[in-house]
Amino acid sequence: MLLTSINNPQDLKKCSLPELYALADEIRQFLVENLSKTGGHLAPNLGVVELTLALHYVFNSPVDKLIWDVGHQAYVHKILTGRREMFPTLRQYKGLCGFPKMCESPHDVWETGHSSTSLSAAMGMATARDLKKEKNHVVAIIGDGALTGGMALEAMNHIGHEGKNVIVVLNDNEMSIAPNVGALHNYLGKLRSATNYKRAKEELEHLLKSIPAVGGRLAHMAERFKDSMKYLLVSGILFEELGFTYIGPIDGHNMELMLDTLKTAKQTKGPVLIHAITKKGKGYAPAEADSVKWHGIGTYKIESGDTPKSAPMYTKVFADTMISLAEEDERIVAVTPAMPAGSGLIPFGERFPDRLFDVGIAEQHACTFAAGLATQGLKPVFAVYSTFLQRAYDQLIHDVARQKLNVIFAVDRAGLVGADGETHQGVYDIAFMRAIPNMVIMAPKDENELRHMMKTAVAYEDGPISFRYPRLSVRGVKIDDEMKTLPIGKAEIVREGRDVAILSFGHIFEIAEHAVEQLSREGIHPMLVNARFCKPLDAELLTRLAREGYDLITVEEGSEMGGFGSAVREFLAEAGYHHIRVKTIGVPDYFVEHGSVKEQRLEVGLTAEQIVACVRAFLPVSKGVVEA
Amino acid sequence: MLLTSINNPQDLKKCSLPELYALADEIRQFLVENLSKTGGHLAPNLGVVELTLALHYVFNSPVDKLIWDVGHQAYVHKILTGRREMFPTLRQYKGLCGFPKMCESPHDVWETGHSSTSLSAAMGMATARDLKKEKNHVVAIIGDGALTGGMALEAMNHIGHEGKNVIVVLNDNEMSIAPNVGALHNYLGKLRSATNYKRAKEELEHLLKSIPAVGGRLAHMAERFKDSMKYLLVSGILFEELGFTYIGPIDGHNMELMLDTLKTAKQTKGPVLIHAITKKGKGYAPAEADSVKWHGIGTYKIESGDTPKSAPMYTKVFADTMISLAEEDERIVAVTPAMPAGSGLIPFGERFPDRLFDVGIAEQHACTFAAGLATQGLKPVFAVYSTFLQRAYDQLIHDVARQKLNVIFAVDRAGLVGADGETHQGVYDIAFMRAIPNMVIMAPKDENELRHMMKTAVAYEDGPISFRYPRLSVRGVKIDDEMKTLPIGKAEIVREGRDVAILSFGHIFEIAEHAVEQLSREGIHPMLVNARFCKPLDAELLTRLAREGYDLITVEEGSEMGGFGSAVREFLAEAGYHHIRVKTIGVPDYFVEHGSVKEQRLEVGLTAEQIVACVRAFLPVSKGVVEA
Repeated sequence: MLLTSINNPQDLKKCSLPELYALADEIRQFLVENLSKTGGHLAPNLGVVELTLALHYVFNSPVDKLIWDVGHQAYVHKILTGRREMFPTLRQYKGLCGFPKMCESPHDVWETGHSSTSLSAAMGMATARDLKKEKNHVVAIIGDGALTGGMALEAMNHIGHEGKNVIVVLNDNEMSIAPNVGALHNYLGKLRSATNYKRAKEELEHLLKSIPAVGGRLAHMAERFKDSMKYLLVSGILFEELGFTYIGPIDGHNMELMLDTLKTAKQTKGPVLIHAITKKGKGYAPAEADSVKWHGIGTYKIESGDTPKSAPMYTKVFADTMISLAEEDERIVAVTPAMPAGSGLIPFGERFPDRLFDVGIAEQHACTFAAGLATQGLKPVFAVYSTFLQRAYDQLIHDVARQKLNVIFAVDRAGLVGADGETHQGVYDIAFMRAIPNMVIMAPKDENELRHMMKTAVAYEDGPISFRYPRLSVRGVKIDDEMKTLPIGKAEIVREGRDVAILSFGHIFEIAEHAVEQLSREGIHPMLVNARFCKPLDAELLTRLAREGYDLITVEEGSEMGGFGSAVREFLAEAGYHHIRVKTIGVPDYFVEHGSVKEQRLEVGLTAEQIVACVRAFLPVSKGVVEA
Repeated sequence: MLLTSINNPQDLKKCSLPELYALADEIRQFLVENLSKTGGHLAPNLGVVELTLALHYVFNSPVDKLIWDVGHQAYVHKILTGRREMFPTLRQYKGLCGFPKMCESPHDVWETGHSSTSLSAAMGMATARDLKKEKNHVVAIIGDGALTGGMALEAMNHIGHEGKNVIVVLNDNEMSIAPNVGALHNYLGKLRSATNYKRAKEELEHLLKSIPAVGGRLAHMAERFKDSMKYLLVSGILFEELGFTYIGPIDGHNMELMLDTLKTAKQTKGPVLIHAITKKGKGYAPAEADSVKWHGIGTYKIESGDTPKSAPMYTKVFADTMISLAEEDERIVAVTPAMPAGSGLIPFGERFPDRLFDVGIAEQHACTFAAGLATQGLKPVFAVYSTFLQRAYDQLIHDVARQKLNVIFAVDRAGLVGADGETHQGVYDIAFMRAIPNMVIMAPKDENELRHMMKTAVAYEDGPISFRYPRLSVRGVKIDDEMKTLPIGKAEIVREGRDVAILSFGHIFEIAEHAVEQLSREGIHPMLVNARFCKPLDAELLTRLAREGYDLITVEEGSEMGGFGSAVREFLAEAGYHHIRVKTIGVPDYFVEHGSVKEQRLEVGLTAEQIVACVRAFLPVSKGVVEA
């Protein structure tokens, strides 16, 4: 085993070319074996083995800065920078993070998780370097999917203009997480096929002939277009036009070529873009065959690639219900920013190919595109993870809520998300949506209610409406035969009780209910309310509770700062019920790291036992009517 | 006067070409005269007179959809769609809005204010049209500055891929609000100069010769580049590569050419981009000479172009202080998303040309670029309007706060902004920043304290820190000789008092102080606190107030939902002081329309008189110690 002798990038630099190839094999084997026990982003990492080896061979990390866009492809980098032995703890509580993490290693100079940030960071580091008159290289490694994100294009525009020494390695595997979409993708496709130039040229000439005659100017242009196409095909002129020196496309698995190219880039003045073609999942047959499934994976059997059956998720219920609703109502369409699989919408797209819009990694556009659809009377459902909705915040405010358009926000991965950790926690959506006028904000207590809320959202005609659901298995409750429309702003009293009322918002109800059952066994009988709506709140119920002198405990899997509990306090105070005590239980004010959702809940105080303790501690100073 | 006979676009269609030209002259005169009395976006509208006439002549609004990106250039459109007589009320309270507004006219099919949204909206409308099997044209009019915004590029990628019939009119005046930046801008510049092709070619050949020899591959590529350049120059190949049929560049003031081109575009299948060159301010000499100043202007004298002297603004104090601080500390750099003038940073850029970064309309990139600078020990100040910070929300969370980087957020135009209205209100920043861990959030009570807060921000080394200031003239308070560092999380008791404490956050202090003076004359003596920090709150002071039994009134020019007052309630409840009554005064939960800040404050209840009334109403149910 060569790999055991590589404890930092310096060790790597002593290797010969055959040794580097041998290392690549060992690393693939290491990844396949380790991830079979821990799960993780297997396919992306199998794709960047040679690329990462070459980068660490040619550059001098951490003096030279390696910036991993999205960051789920940084496992090989972690292996080479002294963290090999931590892989059994990958993505586990207090274990190795699945993304670059500064506190783990000085070689992690930039933390990621969300896509398309690396070029901006690289430009910042290169600019600082030049201001400080330092000498080092800044290298961003970005996938073809991430390149369609607006901020990556904003950054390319800036880098190209300033002409800074920044090296961009475009890791082109024809994938973001799902198969790529967009004109830029088509363009990359053309570059890819440039080696088969002749055929491409023929196809293009055929295409050009099909351009309709639309007057002299266009016809003339089409001619010119045809003549210049051959150059465009093989020169990456689009990147050149933006000010980059373009090198490629090259085979990202050819170590010798990668080393040469990186050395060339290192000596080139100004921004350089290296276009490397790689294969996601390379070297492990199941992952090569289905790189969407093997993008992020749980545990599996190495030989067969079998993965354990998992319980159905909330996402599946959402996706199935989308089909049912869309069959009844042709106004319903779905918009996803590069997450058709993650959002469960692939069957929807198969059933309604014209009504699913995957716009690529482009949350800003996705949201405003949905707004545009809504202006024409459609009912767009913007299916988006809570953490990525942060990217469409201005669009939610300025384009949707302000114009009071009927856009439905299906906020997936809401609450604590487990192994993805800090960067992906879906805990701010309640707070950031709640401050915006015209928003209706719902969260279902279980999968059955999710269906009713979806029906409610479609029936609602007075502006934007949202519902949030977790990255969790469903509870397994009975599913009602018919979906029904819930009254807007009305909560559900699940269990009457005395002295204290527990108001639960969303899927955390499952935990709140366990807590109430336990309290009940202890002789404490709180009222249990499924709030259903955070905005508008159930004014009637809250008024009743206040008048009857209940103390309140709110429970939510979201930020305590500005969240549902905060909304309840605001309502009571503005209604003049200042004497009502409100205790909030939610996610505290820090970034919660990776682990299982169960561990994360324990850490932040969202288990049934902790809620029970909280209620007990809250009660004694109450009206003293609690049974001993 | 022809113009008086044009009451809707149908009237326009009866005009001859000479009449259209005459109309253009009349419209310019109308704009210059009317805006001299009301102020408004003069230069952008003078630039689009012919373009707008041609659009309404060729297309059939509102069946065909005209979508105005940013929207401040829609005055001519408003004149032609029956709103001519409302111009004396432009941007005034209850008057004509300065941006497209659906409630004003069916011809306003999409509301704007922020930039770069039009292509996404157009794609939404075109997609809905095709799904519904309707026939109409969708036309987006977008400036060259707005095109650098990431979401516009995301939308182009989607439109180009889908090949929808969408017409984009690129209104290229070489300006966004400030002179444009970025590689895309340079590219447009090349297209512009293509008529002078020979000279361009010579320059390019010279340029190509200067490319250093970096190995065979690159040299070969440079050769190809040279050969293909002539085609690129005149064919808009960048847009073609993204899937658009490109027409241009054409003279946007040549009515005949505009009419012909629009007719051609109307008949072209798939996405079309018309590249029209226009002159901002055209036809009014002062605006032609200084289109930055005349972009948005107050009242002026028509003959001389003289504008009344205005009192110094908070922005000026920020800008001057930036220079003072940067002279002492070379780590300080400034980042602006296309607002060097609006943010007052032009003198800073003159003094420190290497330390001001105008990245174009690209808030996402701006924020993460600043984060990249911060990783290398610099102290980037991201100067951004509150309303545009909404566009960098995920970057603030994921790239800055989560990595705890020392980025300073200078949040300008915070609070009610006056004539720009709904789309530009800076009232959500407190709520949306407050939910994010690691943020420090300050707001100064006056311009003197703004300087101290800037000093504090630069001295702070433990993560992101923000301060917010309004689009208002300064109070005119004494400026301290030396700037000092304020203790983090400490409020200032400005005036001791009894029974009730008024906690004011930010510049609204001026109004709160007036209210307290008035109450004092009535024999009511509240304590007056300048909170300074919303996060972290002054726990010690709040605890003291709670222990001493004060009732609290919070005042802020920001959303009541989730804002400063909400933070105070959270603190007290979590600290167990449930009995303390807290009344919040802020901006209520709806979008506040255009008018003067004074009128807007009166509408929402933020005048001194209203605060006095609020305190009076709050007091009687208190401890009954108020003097009669």
